[in-house]
Amino acid sequence: MSIVVVGSVAYDGVETPHGKVDRMLGGAATYISLASSYFAKTKIVAVVGGDFAAEDEKLLADRGIDLEGLERVKGGKTFFWAGVYSQDMNDRTTLRTDLNVFADFNPKVPESYKKSPYLLLGNIQPSLQRSVREQMNGLRLAGGDTMNYWIKDFRDELLATIKDWDFLLINDAEARMLSGENNLKRAAAKIMAMGPKTLVVKRGEYGAILFHGDSHFMVPAYLLEEVFDPTGAGDCFAGGFIGYLAEKGVDLKAGHAGATELSRAVIYGSVMGSFCCEKFGVDRFRTLTRKDIDARFQEFRNFTEF
Amino acid sequence: MSIVVVGSVAYDGVETPHGKVDRMLGGAATYISLASSYFAKTKIVAVVGGDFAAEDEKLLADRGIDLEGLERVKGGKTFFWAGVYSQDMNDRTTLRTDLNVFADFNPKVPESYKKSPYLLLGNIQPSLQRSVREQMNGLRLAGGDTMNYWIKDFRDELLATIKDWDFLLINDAEARMLSGENNLKRAAAKIMAMGPKTLVVKRGEYGAILFHGDSHFMVPAYLLEEVFDPTGAGDCFAGGFIGYLAEKGVDLKAGHAGATELSRAVIYGSVMGSFCCEKFGVDRFRTLTRKDIDARFQEFRNFTEF
Repeated sequence: MSIVVVGSVAYDGVETPHGKVDRMLGGAATYISLASSYFAKTKIVAVVGGDFAAEDEKLLADRGIDLEGLERVKGGKTFFWAGVYSQDMNDRTTLRTDLNVFADFNPKVPESYKKSPYLLLGNIQPSLQRSVREQMNGLRLAGGDTMNYWIKDFRDELLATIKDWDFLLINDAEARMLSGENNLKRAAAKIMAMGPKTLVVKRGEYGAILFHGDSHFMVPAYLLEEVFDPTGAGDCFAGGFIGYLAEKGVDLKAGHAGATELSRAVIYGSVMGSFCCEKFGVDRFRTLTRKDIDARFQEFRNFTEF
Repeated sequence: MSIVVVGSVAYDGVETPHGKVDRMLGGAATYISLASSYFAKTKIVAVVGGDFAAEDEKLLADRGIDLEGLERVKGGKTFFWAGVYSQDMNDRTTLRTDLNVFADFNPKVPESYKKSPYLLLGNIQPSLQRSVREQMNGLRLAGGDTMNYWIKDFRDELLATIKDWDFLLINDAEARMLSGENNLKRAAAKIMAMGPKTLVVKRGEYGAILFHGDSHFMVPAYLLEEVFDPTGAGDCFAGGFIGYLAEKGVDLKAGHAGATELSRAVIYGSVMGSFCCEKFGVDRFRTLTRKDIDARFQEFRNFTEF
């Protein structure tokens, strides 16, 4: 079943201890869609400028991603972000953010997208996430991501948006900020009372926790020998998560398979996040196959079973 | 099968965001022995002063711990440590360390201990750990813990000690310091080349990784709603780990069950570490039962299976 993904399509400048790339394809919607495209038909809603390269568009199209909702602003420039990672890659500093055409982004969902049952709202202004959700008909499962900036300065808008979501994916610092609770178990209870019945707390190199109903599921992150570039790992996690749920046609409201499928979706999210870190930017997706993905899913079983 | 445990028996002053205790029973050997006593006969080698309270001795004796190797220095005072934890309890600052009778500790293993097949060397000066190991006859499995201080200032002595160990239990920062590698997978390979064929890297609230042969096993930490006092959690982990291996009679040299039993030992270590944090100091062990322990082991299965 198909997935609609909304978010940024961008150019990134990234420096990590392993190297530096001045300008490469990036953006939340790019990473989410690339990851989810291995599981289900993915349809993108985003905006780019006249400078958006044909080869970058081709990379998305070659993965079967529907680009009807990719708006092109001829005279405009694509969103640009640049950042540098700390030596251990657990912190990053933003060096530059040029919103460009993204400043006036008013997402329009094409007619051909509106009946998609799955919706992943990448990290953009909560009111835009809300507008996209309202344009959809017959959603089976909708949710997304947010960040500290919206939690801090757009709290009311964010709360009005996530109250209708089935799931929320955020990192541990964001979960603490959103809930005002330092303890993750109590933070999760507070956040789930805000609307989303399913919460995934991403902990970077330490894995992820899924909260659903009264229970939770935990998974460590894949142990990589080299993390080249963590940019996009959280978005790839989201793509693997929604991708697997869409592939299986999971309907949480109907109580379909629920917890087990959600846990496996978290594993596929972790798998996609781990592949993302192995090369700079989206490079890993140029060669990655579904066979690689399923083999790593099995590796997760092997190193967590006892 | 029985276990010999060497390390400190101490009094601790601890302050956490949940409260403050000026003086309570503590020390690595105390926590290790309390935890391992649920699995196998445990024999302690340590030193205390004339101030060591009868009620504290009784707590250990009531758990069936053999105290023949607990040396009492009549005119001396028991080792005292005081520290304060940060708000999130991920950091602690030492306020006071009075070595007292521990300064002249020269561990003597009683005859009745020498044929115990399992040995857990708590965090003390590496040359003392070595001396204890050399007093044992017919060890099946020996290993232990260390800390940044020995890694930094007693490196040669430490390397000469751990080269004969079957397993080493350290935290992630110590693994990086000992190996000079930031990446844990590469750090583990370097450390295992120093001697211990099995390495457990403890990651506090993020769980643990077991490296054994060419494979590894990962487990997240138990998600507690309240962490009252993390003091001793790493030692309780060690106690649960060696306790389970001794209970099962695991012999790694004979290739007996190897990887699976080691993974389960890591789970029991995690279980014991989690219980330790639920109350101040050793208080949780006043009421903890083996039934509680096995129920939590099952919880680990439930929240990690997919």
